[in-house]
Amino acid sequence: MNIDYKALADKYGTPLYMYDFDYIENRYTTLKDAFAGKKSLINYAVKANSNLSVIAHLAKLGAGADCVSIGEVKRALTAGVDKYKIIFSGVGKRDDEIREALEQDILLLNLESEAEMKRVEMVAKELGKEARISIRVNPNIDPQTHPYISTGLHENKFGVEIDMAKRMYIYANKSEFLNPVGIHFHIGSQLTKIEPIRESCMIVADLVRSLKAIKIDIKFFDVGGGIGVVYDDEVTIPAEVYTQAIFEATKGLDVTLLCEPGRYMVANAGAFFTKVLYEKVNDGKRFVIVDGAMNDLIRPSLYNAYHKIEAVLKEGEKTPADVVGPVCESGDFFGKNVPLPPLEHNDLIVVHSAGAYGFTMASNYNTRAKAAEVALQGGKDRLIRQRETYEDQVRLELEYLEK
Amino acid sequence: MNIDYKALADKYGTPLYMYDFDYIENRYTTLKDAFAGKKSLINYAVKANSNLSVIAHLAKLGAGADCVSIGEVKRALTAGVDKYKIIFSGVGKRDDEIREALEQDILLLNLESEAEMKRVEMVAKELGKEARISIRVNPNIDPQTHPYISTGLHENKFGVEIDMAKRMYIYANKSEFLNPVGIHFHIGSQLTKIEPIRESCMIVADLVRSLKAIKIDIKFFDVGGGIGVVYDDEVTIPAEVYTQAIFEATKGLDVTLLCEPGRYMVANAGAFFTKVLYEKVNDGKRFVIVDGAMNDLIRPSLYNAYHKIEAVLKEGEKTPADVVGPVCESGDFFGKNVPLPPLEHNDLIVVHSAGAYGFTMASNYNTRAKAAEVALQGGKDRLIRQRETYEDQVRLELEYLEK
Repeated sequence: MNIDYKALADKYGTPLYMYDFDYIENRYTTLKDAFAGKKSLINYAVKANSNLSVIAHLAKLGAGADCVSIGEVKRALTAGVDKYKIIFSGVGKRDDEIREALEQDILLLNLESEAEMKRVEMVAKELGKEARISIRVNPNIDPQTHPYISTGLHENKFGVEIDMAKRMYIYANKSEFLNPVGIHFHIGSQLTKIEPIRESCMIVADLVRSLKAIKIDIKFFDVGGGIGVVYDDEVTIPAEVYTQAIFEATKGLDVTLLCEPGRYMVANAGAFFTKVLYEKVNDGKRFVIVDGAMNDLIRPSLYNAYHKIEAVLKEGEKTPADVVGPVCESGDFFGKNVPLPPLEHNDLIVVHSAGAYGFTMASNYNTRAKAAEVALQGGKDRLIRQRETYEDQVRLELEYLEK
Repeated sequence: MNIDYKALADKYGTPLYMYDFDYIENRYTTLKDAFAGKKSLINYAVKANSNLSVIAHLAKLGAGADCVSIGEVKRALTAGVDKYKIIFSGVGKRDDEIREALEQDILLLNLESEAEMKRVEMVAKELGKEARISIRVNPNIDPQTHPYISTGLHENKFGVEIDMAKRMYIYANKSEFLNPVGIHFHIGSQLTKIEPIRESCMIVADLVRSLKAIKIDIKFFDVGGGIGVVYDDEVTIPAEVYTQAIFEATKGLDVTLLCEPGRYMVANAGAFFTKVLYEKVNDGKRFVIVDGAMNDLIRPSLYNAYHKIEAVLKEGEKTPADVVGPVCESGDFFGKNVPLPPLEHNDLIVVHSAGAYGFTMASNYNTRAKAAEVALQGGKDRLIRQRETYEDQVRLELEYLEK
């Protein structure tokens, strides 16, 4: 990447999200190539970055979509994802979401509880349709990641135990309104170790074999997402190592392999641009106050996540500083004790690896407008979401104001 | 409060925020009465709940507004707060925010660093105006609250040390474009002990005396906000104890007393309504999956905050359950091990004390629409913000989509 951060900041203003579409393409191709020789579908996990243009970019490359709300399903459809490449996951689906997903005839609904299966069956019956489903199996494997994004242990809300899954498959197979075509697991996010993935694959592939033995023909083997990325100095899993583990586990099974990468596709494609407002020293402690805040990028505050922070085009001796936003919380920071040169008003700061779980988690806290989003592709930049205004923020409440 | 939760949920749908305006009025009156006999102004901290109708309700009662962005200043003005009752606080103000605040001629800008003072002076000079300012003093007092909402220690980004404050007042007093009319401190949020407040008041009042001695006439003594509320079993500070501590510290000083309550006014006026989607048991652990999520109310996830959770109109033996939302994160929960009766699809759950830092921190994570907001006043309910739609969420990006 050879990006003119300064020019982009000047053109679009700050705070700003920028995504390198060439990088995304490269990531997609690398992963898709590692699946070569097998039937596979890469379902981009829309929740990581749900900008319509990001989804459309991946759709054009051939990607499907992994969605966790009917809103995300709509985004995928709007962005041009083929309906047979869309799956609808998530632990809690409302009846109206189930109904719309069935009406849209997407690939499948991924189920996470017996109670959910019964509701899907009921809605499908009302519509006189057969719902294609998969079941999320919880393999009880410790993924060795942050507790908030760890999902593969029984103590988590996600998926169902193996025994329960079997019972659900048998039920679904008998139901007139359910068609169990897939199996799914997802043990966590930002995984950097292959072993938990390999182990989960083996456990779930065994279940598929025992289901096939009783004539329940699983066609889609969905290994979930969660491949880790480099934020700092993580050693991540190469695409081929990842797919080889999947190939070994599913040896002899006639299935289409699905995976749901989100962070993997977009995290390091993205950067968050923010400008310095002031420097400040309190009792010897140095603070760099910038125009971006926790409402724009909450990962440091919520997960204590590390993001590499760079002062663009600035020289000088680096000393540690907390990079903080204008929001009235001590939790409003992008980095602590970041080595930075002396900075002045309007100097540009780039927060790297901000392409995933950045804008999608943004809020209007402190009545701060959401940032603009920009795509960079083939050396050209273009706006993909305009900056919010005050008027946008009060639009849904202004007419109810009685002064 | 005698609120028909069920009727409101049926009428407006879920997830839903409801605010009891009579309760807010009662809180305002209680606090205002405790200031009786002194010149005082209660500046509602808009960041706690910035719905225009909430601000307007308080404005009609006589409240001013404490704002931390130009967006909040605009909300206050839109809602009918008198411009001379609006103060603009916060550690990081952009030049355009400073300019607009000066053009709107609000009561004062509260400054948090020397660098900020210089920028305000510069902008005021450009406009040919005199900026009324206060300075936020950091009294280096441990407020004994959650680290993310603790702000009164030097290791925080907030305010300036006493010595620095003095230098800034002397500078501002000489400047043609600055008029130092106020002093401010704020040591943290959700304070339940009077001692740190009393101590801070004493320190800052001493500074005011020494400033008056050199002919810098401070007119507004702003004690900030942060009075705690009852979420669980906290013992909070009675309004009279609070004001007595302020009266004692400021004895003999001719100042108008300002305070900036946010949570105090609205936290327990509010409730968040969510409906049960399914019950689920994983390895003996009980989960109640509801249609609200961390994107609606992030306090449990972000601060590990406690909210009382109630199943409305349900009887039966209570067993512990995690109340979780549909968002694909283990961090998506409202409560853990909450004693709840057996629950079914569509049963109503009320999350109490959700009036402050609830909706204002809401996001569209997982492409979930923001909830509707409803006011309850004199036995009547009315919508004060309509539920967001999918179309609302893609409105600022749809035209940039190139399929």
